[in-house]
Amino acid sequence: MPSGKILVAQGGGPTAVINQSLVGVVLEARRFRGVERVYGARHGVRGIINEDFDDLTQETSHNLELVAGTPSSALGSTRDKPDEKYCREIFEVLRAHEIEHFFYIGGNDSADTTRIVSLEARKAGYPLRCIHIPKTIDNDLVGNDHTPGFPSAARFVAQAFAGANLDNASLPGVYVGVVMGRHAGFLTAASALGKKFPDDGPHLIYLPERTFVIEQFLHDVKAAYERHGRCVIAVSEGIHDASGEPMASLLAKDIERDEHGNVQLSGSGALADLLCEEIKSKLRIKRVRGDTFGYLQRSFIGCVSDVDQREAREVGEKAVQFAMWGQRDGSVAIRRTGFYSVDYDLLGLDEVAGKTRVMEDAFIAPSGTDITDAFRLYLRPLLGSGMPDAFRLRPNPVPKVRNAAR
Amino acid sequence: MPSGKILVAQGGGPTAVINQSLVGVVLEARRFRGVERVYGARHGVRGIINEDFDDLTQETSHNLELVAGTPSSALGSTRDKPDEKYCREIFEVLRAHEIEHFFYIGGNDSADTTRIVSLEARKAGYPLRCIHIPKTIDNDLVGNDHTPGFPSAARFVAQAFAGANLDNASLPGVYVGVVMGRHAGFLTAASALGKKFPDDGPHLIYLPERTFVIEQFLHDVKAAYERHGRCVIAVSEGIHDASGEPMASLLAKDIERDEHGNVQLSGSGALADLLCEEIKSKLRIKRVRGDTFGYLQRSFIGCVSDVDQREAREVGEKAVQFAMWGQRDGSVAIRRTGFYSVDYDLLGLDEVAGKTRVMEDAFIAPSGTDITDAFRLYLRPLLGSGMPDAFRLRPNPVPKVRNAAR
Repeated sequence: MPSGKILVAQGGGPTAVINQSLVGVVLEARRFRGVERVYGARHGVRGIINEDFDDLTQETSHNLELVAGTPSSALGSTRDKPDEKYCREIFEVLRAHEIEHFFYIGGNDSADTTRIVSLEARKAGYPLRCIHIPKTIDNDLVGNDHTPGFPSAARFVAQAFAGANLDNASLPGVYVGVVMGRHAGFLTAASALGKKFPDDGPHLIYLPERTFVIEQFLHDVKAAYERHGRCVIAVSEGIHDASGEPMASLLAKDIERDEHGNVQLSGSGALADLLCEEIKSKLRIKRVRGDTFGYLQRSFIGCVSDVDQREAREVGEKAVQFAMWGQRDGSVAIRRTGFYSVDYDLLGLDEVAGKTRVMEDAFIAPSGTDITDAFRLYLRPLLGSGMPDAFRLRPNPVPKVRNAAR
Repeated sequence: MPSGKILVAQGGGPTAVINQSLVGVVLEARRFRGVERVYGARHGVRGIINEDFDDLTQETSHNLELVAGTPSSALGSTRDKPDEKYCREIFEVLRAHEIEHFFYIGGNDSADTTRIVSLEARKAGYPLRCIHIPKTIDNDLVGNDHTPGFPSAARFVAQAFAGANLDNASLPGVYVGVVMGRHAGFLTAASALGKKFPDDGPHLIYLPERTFVIEQFLHDVKAAYERHGRCVIAVSEGIHDASGEPMASLLAKDIERDEHGNVQLSGSGALADLLCEEIKSKLRIKRVRGDTFGYLQRSFIGCVSDVDQREAREVGEKAVQFAMWGQRDGSVAIRRTGFYSVDYDLLGLDEVAGKTRVMEDAFIAPSGTDITDAFRLYLRPLLGSGMPDAFRLRPNPVPKVRNAAR
């Protein structure tokens, strides 16, 4: 069993439960007698290059528990996408500090970083154990039933649409809500879990797994509006035309790209505004409103799934156990074993790194604008306990007196 | 004491607790033996004109309690702004149904409708008791310490900024969050209640009570960004230039106006996007993100202040008591009597109708971009119990080994 120092870091977009995984690593590691120190790198891999480490062994367990319940990355994060040279640099710093365990909490880019660092260590003959801990609200890691962070973000989206539906029923019109998710529609699809009554919205759901055609969209909206006298629509920020070009970038004047070459989709209301303009001008509907949920869906404090919290803690704990008792590097994965129970595997880093999962066809209705009961059954237990519920007055119409003929 | 039938309706934008007031009216009214029936009008005053009434006396108390806990107007709402002719029509319908009590839950426009209907009844010598019940997330009713609906929306805004601050600390940059409030900045100011540590955001707050000057804004953002390495900004949708022209309408190509002649400010991300563009292009800051909280801040299900729920229920109950035991029409108002306790008054309809309260100068810091402790003390008890709290890892820096000189 290797011993010595442990390093943990957090990468990519924060989630509501990423600190659960961090604290899972710290508290579990301290139960192993071989572990002298648990370091945390500030702002992900950039903190490693800069040797910006905090000694988490000197933190109280009480404060660790409070941090675990706080959303967003307590150590800070980064959008740096390390290439091989960057990874060699990471490895050199780890070696200089005599760190023998590296835990990286993040999505598929972070898994790829972990993979390259693992390779570098092996090439150098240095005994470094590298474990990737899953995290992403997009739910797009392969090999996982779902990923920590997704259930809480899905809960936010479901609650947001449950409320938006009530608002729209009260003041009828068309409502467009734009949800995060560049390639995978899981989070947008979660909007359907806010429905209770058969005529509740969202009445239409647009996912990046299906090609978006504006004419068909307008046709769908018109039909739903005529049927319900109103229409609530969930749209993924990642919807794109047949060539794969995002609708959002078809509009943007100055397209911003991140270090991974991705077009900036979040942090702008442009897509919602364009779709609203189309509906107003082409369908002549007056009351059309658009919201872009933006950063609220991943950072709002006070909306979390208790199931997500528990699992995020467990993937951190299991990462340490796999590292200490196992013989290989890898990526912790969640496997579903019942309705509802889970267990954890250690997948090879190759199996997860840089790969993207999208929604299975069985989760998407043939219409392409709704989800299936299979998806409803998949997602419901993840949302956790205490989901708010909406109630209606039952109709008891009073006979008209003055305009009895109306 | 008058008797007979009661009518209740809901007007204007929904809130998280407007159904508490509705249910307060229904349940309290049923305790008076003179009351035969409690009717609810569907979609506010429009439901009166259309005689679209539901008999709420036939609803179970259990379902009423569940509806009370559901956000948005259970009876539906309307943006109709009745003129005198419309109000005469309302009155004729009430007379035809032998309704002798009219309760209208809404903001200052709804108070004005109640005032005109009251006048019409008096002119006709018809014994109609008219009571306005306060409701608005904008907190802009005069004569009230605060208005039901505002505390829950304020809680949403505070929680949203607490989370956005954590997200921004994790991935530093500039974040602009646009908050509802056309003339009154209370809701935008609530963003400050999400702050805990001295360097937490929002670092800058822009209210409609102060003139917005883009050059000063850029200067403020630059200074805050240089100081903190990041910047979180709360902006009211109602910010305007010295002539009173809203910044949002200075940009919009096709300005949409509602029936009250107001420019549409919500349901579009344009203001946030413009401000972000200005910051990016003028200050050369790369990571700049904007969110428009939109309808989430008034309709999100699962974010409510228990103090707000209780008070919204009480204004409904008190409205019935004022109607049954009092001798005059009026508007129920919340008065603060302690830290923290309230009592209720009945103001004259003239005192509230059509008037707009804005933030007192004592609530706004001399800089114009922050709030005072007086506001913090004013708002905190309204947010209710169980406000989520954010925690940090305490710094325990590890000495550098490899780059000790850095």
